[in-house]
Amino acid sequence: MTLTPEQQTEIETARAAAHSTRRATVPALEELLFTALPVLDHGFVRVVDYMGDDNAVVQAARVSYGRGTRKTTEDEGLIRYLMRHYHSTPFEMCEIKYHVKLPIFVARQWIRHRTANVNEYSARYSIMDKDFYIPSPENLATQSASNRQGRGDVLDPETAARVLALLRADAEQTYDHYAEMLDEEGIGLARELARMNLTLNTYTQWYWKTDLHNLFNFLRLRADAHAQYEIRVYAEAMLETAKAWVPLSYAAFRDYRLGAVTFSAKMLDVLRAMLAGESPSPEESGLSKREWAEMMGALGRKDGT
Amino acid sequence: MTLTPEQQTEIETARAAAHSTRRATVPALEELLFTALPVLDHGFVRVVDYMGDDNAVVQAARVSYGRGTRKTTEDEGLIRYLMRHYHSTPFEMCEIKYHVKLPIFVARQWIRHRTANVNEYSARYSIMDKDFYIPSPENLATQSASNRQGRGDVLDPETAARVLALLRADAEQTYDHYAEMLDEEGIGLARELARMNLTLNTYTQWYWKTDLHNLFNFLRLRADAHAQYEIRVYAEAMLETAKAWVPLSYAAFRDYRLGAVTFSAKMLDVLRAMLAGESPSPEESGLSKREWAEMMGALGRKDGT
Amino acid sequence: MTLTPEQQTEIETARAAAHSTRRATVPALEELLFTALPVLDHGFVRVVDYMGDDNAVVQAARVSYGRGTRKTTEDEGLIRYLMRHYHSTPFEMCEIKYHVKLPIFVARQWIRHRTANVNEYSARYSIMDKDFYIPSPENLATQSASNRQGRGDVLDPETAARVLALLRADAEQTYDHYAEMLDEEGIGLARELARMNLTLNTYTQWYWKTDLHNLFNFLRLRADAHAQYEIRVYAEAMLETAKAWVPLSYAAFRDYRLGAVTFSAKMLDVLRAMLAGESPSPEESGLSKREWAEMMGALGRKDGT
Amino acid sequence: MTLTPEQQTEIETARAAAHSTRRATVPALEELLFTALPVLDHGFVRVVDYMGDDNAVVQAARVSYGRGTRKTTEDEGLIRYLMRHYHSTPFEMCEIKYHVKLPIFVARQWIRHRTANVNEYSARYSIMDKDFYIPSPENLATQSASNRQGRGDVLDPETAARVLALLRADAEQTYDHYAEMLDEEGIGLARELARMNLTLNTYTQWYWKTDLHNLFNFLRLRADAHAQYEIRVYAEAMLETAKAWVPLSYAAFRDYRLGAVTFSAKMLDVLRAMLAGESPSPEESGLSKREWAEMMGALGRKDGT
Repeated sequence: MTLTPEQQTEIETARAAAHSTRRATVPALEELLFTALPVLDHGFVRVVDYMGDDNAVVQAARVSYGRGTRKTTEDEGLIRYLMRHYHSTPFEMCEIKYHVKLPIFVARQWIRHRTANVNEYSARYSIMDKDFYIPSPENLATQSASNRQGRGDVLDPETAARVLALLRADAEQTYDHYAEMLDEEGIGLARELARMNLTLNTYTQWYWKTDLHNLFNFLRLRADAHAQYEIRVYAEAMLETAKAWVPLSYAAFRDYRLGAVTFSAKMLDVLRAMLAGESPSPEESGLSKREWAEMMGALGRKDGT
Repeated sequence: MTLTPEQQTEIETARAAAHSTRRATVPALEELLFTALPVLDHGFVRVVDYMGDDNAVVQAARVSYGRGTRKTTEDEGLIRYLMRHYHSTPFEMCEIKYHVKLPIFVARQWIRHRTANVNEYSARYSIMDKDFYIPSPENLATQSASNRQGRGDVLDPETAARVLALLRADAEQTYDHYAEMLDEEGIGLARELARMNLTLNTYTQWYWKTDLHNLFNFLRLRADAHAQYEIRVYAEAMLETAKAWVPLSYAAFRDYRLGAVTFSAKMLDVLRAMLAGESPSPEESGLSKREWAEMMGALGRKDGT
Repeated sequence: MTLTPEQQTEIETARAAAHSTRRATVPALEELLFTALPVLDHGFVRVVDYMGDDNAVVQAARVSYGRGTRKTTEDEGLIRYLMRHYHSTPFEMCEIKYHVKLPIFVARQWIRHRTANVNEYSARYSIMDKDFYIPSPENLATQSASNRQGRGDVLDPETAARVLALLRADAEQTYDHYAEMLDEEGIGLARELARMNLTLNTYTQWYWKTDLHNLFNFLRLRADAHAQYEIRVYAEAMLETAKAWVPLSYAAFRDYRLGAVTFSAKMLDVLRAMLAGESPSPEESGLSKREWAEMMGALGRKDGT
Repeated sequence: MTLTPEQQTEIETARAAAHSTRRATVPALEELLFTALPVLDHGFVRVVDYMGDDNAVVQAARVSYGRGTRKTTEDEGLIRYLMRHYHSTPFEMCEIKYHVKLPIFVARQWIRHRTANVNEYSARYSIMDKDFYIPSPENLATQSASNRQGRGDVLDPETAARVLALLRADAEQTYDHYAEMLDEEGIGLARELARMNLTLNTYTQWYWKTDLHNLFNFLRLRADAHAQYEIRVYAEAMLETAKAWVPLSYAAFRDYRLGAVTFSAKMLDVLRAMLAGESPSPEESGLSKREWAEMMGALGRKDGT
């Protein structure tokens, strides 16, 4: 799965090639094409192909011909309007394709986003490389006491070393047995069977293609502070590619999605009372303790008094 | 909705523009970009954008880097293998976007293909053009006696003239009343209400984007001889664009889908008996009369004797 | 398409039937089964079948066996948590199927929600009934001056009468010509052709099936005050069925979706300033005039001072 | 994840409960509700809920009211017609929900079917059980020499024993280290991290819900002889549930999908020549060797002479 010298040469040749096209072209994203952005210890994200740009969103919204005489400020206003009001179909008119190398346990989270096209490296057909994810010590943390699916404190160096030793030794051993079972001079076990001995931190890779609307949905959930670190770093690398590709749509996405907060009907009641100079109490608000804390956090307050 | 001289100029300017790109580029499809292929009396199909080519299918199937050293014959064999065995995900790696102008009753059939992205001209937001589909006399036919959703004999000239007169007069009149209701100097009715007075042969238009796998699904059903003529002509125009875009995938599609026939388990029994020199009868076959006729038709025989 | 006396009898028989099942059953929704809720002048919505209940959402979230010993208050808290944090998959575990009779121009908006299963009455196969939507005078309004896709003032009685006369006469005439073209003793035109002469306010009908998550998405957009009246009334009837079916999920949906407001990153800055006792101005906020107005409206204020 | 005595009691209680409903009910499937069908060494499939029956398919196809006066033979003919002509939407009107326990490497294949709703046991949130799949010796085979993703000969007993010892020891060890890392009295590592040390034969479980059309698509691919044994046995158990649920649709599926063969345009040329008494040769046919062999196999012939 890793790159042979021949493949490196091919990619560089592809990067050097220039074709002439009538299609919308984005120079800033062209710069990133065929360039692997490193993620985790052995993973990467690279843009393989794309279709459309900010103007394709505008054009679809107008279902009009050509570029028109509108100025950029109007385009920006329209894109912001579309994003704010959840008019998602114009954003579906842009498409992007990534090549990603990622640990299997990350791939299992990622694949839950169903509105994408995927071609994954097949361990029925081919032999997996000996690549596994071993966290950096600073990313090893205890189970969160307050959040059933989060992390708490970072492990002390000694404990971290013990964990890393276990992860490394088990991944090495299970891979070596995988290779032993596959060996055609020895056991020669079918690949579709031998693969079951690999651990979930083994790296796989895939082509993943989606439209801009669904890419933003993915990024909103996976670039969020509550997402698991190991998938969030992929989302962060992809945010960079989106910014290069569709700067106006990306800015609207940051403002209306990533940086936005939704207040429930009950929260709005509390908010209106606060703005009227009242001091509503958590108890009377009808909000749960957690909701109250989330709301006050979003407003930059410790409490509501 | 129709093209103003300014818009024509814009499209021609866009057609004349040439950008430099590192993306896979298909010269034969570039030729067709920004060119409206006429369909029916006022409709058209034009390719607005595309992503990928035959090689992108191969590349996804291999999830490998670059073009490799494989020869074209191997790529062709791989594409044929993928098509034959319904390995559909590699074909999902190519994407195409069309701009289509079509009658509303055709749009209502078309939209049933859900795996596509669509932006349609909005009659809530804008005023519809005075364009409606009036069939050619040779396309006016009686209801089929044998097929509840098909056509029978072509109408005689006099009857056809009567039908065309009715269609034309009603479309004219309902459109004129639509315009009267909209008139801001007069009634000034909301567009979202006035539109309900239009007939179903009024033309609309949309951007329609899909991947190659789903495009083939659409074409298999809509380029079929049993599809309604008025949607089939759109499918036929799109077949031409697919042929220019992905010639190897297109050839495999023709062989394994468009020109293929599926025989049921019972039909295979009949076939094996025929090949063994027997003369199975329709009655003993377990097939319905219609199935028997369909099967013998596919085999180029009038009956099975 | 309308109900014959025989069909009425059948529906009543079906309503009277009682089967024994081990499946989760919701008495309040059973009451509504096979009962058409009237919408507009000739339309209706009726629940034909359903799968799951509030507990199925909880069960999927826990992927646990059986009902467990949890109390209802915990279930409610969990459902609210899932809704608040956009954990949508547990809501996908419930499914509902409607039979709907609706004008074609409403059907064209509705079908844009792609994540549903649809079987529509076929005008290729069958003859459409002579049923068309004619608005009530109080629902006839002028084009909005401020909103390109909305309504303004209600028409005066005389103008409304003129509109209704036009709509009625055109629908009658085009239908009569449709019938004339279809007449097997006369022209005998194929149904798939004759239908193009019908106006967009002709009623059609379909079976529409979706899961609870996608039903809520539909209702959020279509029960909204900005949705066109003619589709909103369908959404409102369906809200009633959702309330009977899954009362806890429905209450969470009202609080966190229907009654909620999302503030952008820029709006949050304004809000924090207001809570700190400052008086941010629209000009300095970075918000557009429309955004400012929307935000202050949500906070129950005329302006931000 | 396994059943505690309390959970067993709950399931038995649920099984014993009987509710009254107006919905379509299928006694043969009710019998199977809440009953786990064992698959592999620790897996199972059980039907949790369902909506609709064969009649719901017919009803959707007719978009008519109630059961009508049609006889069962007509319903059967209609269902067979729909299946033969790929009219898939009526089959989408039925829905089924399964609870499945399955090894992770099987889950990774299964999840590629995107048109389903899934809620999987979360290893971020909960601790995985110590259950892993260890094949039976007769299911351990060498890599196929002819098929890059298949199995060849069964391993000899001694080699099989060696493989089983490796699989067992590695799964035990990695699980024990997983438990050690999780131990709150010891390392206390976050669950979302510790899980990466598990092997791919660890069992997971999920709720999986889909409509009848997509269930058939899944079964056609996964009950096929070329599917990997470990997923095929799940498909086979599900075939039994489909047979109990919708016997007419199931019979049509067997005839027109599972037992059917598609001949390409080129294959049809060969077939017509054979029926005309000619002896076309593989070389002249334009078919690849593999295609020729597949075709002759389907016709029950060793070669084409």
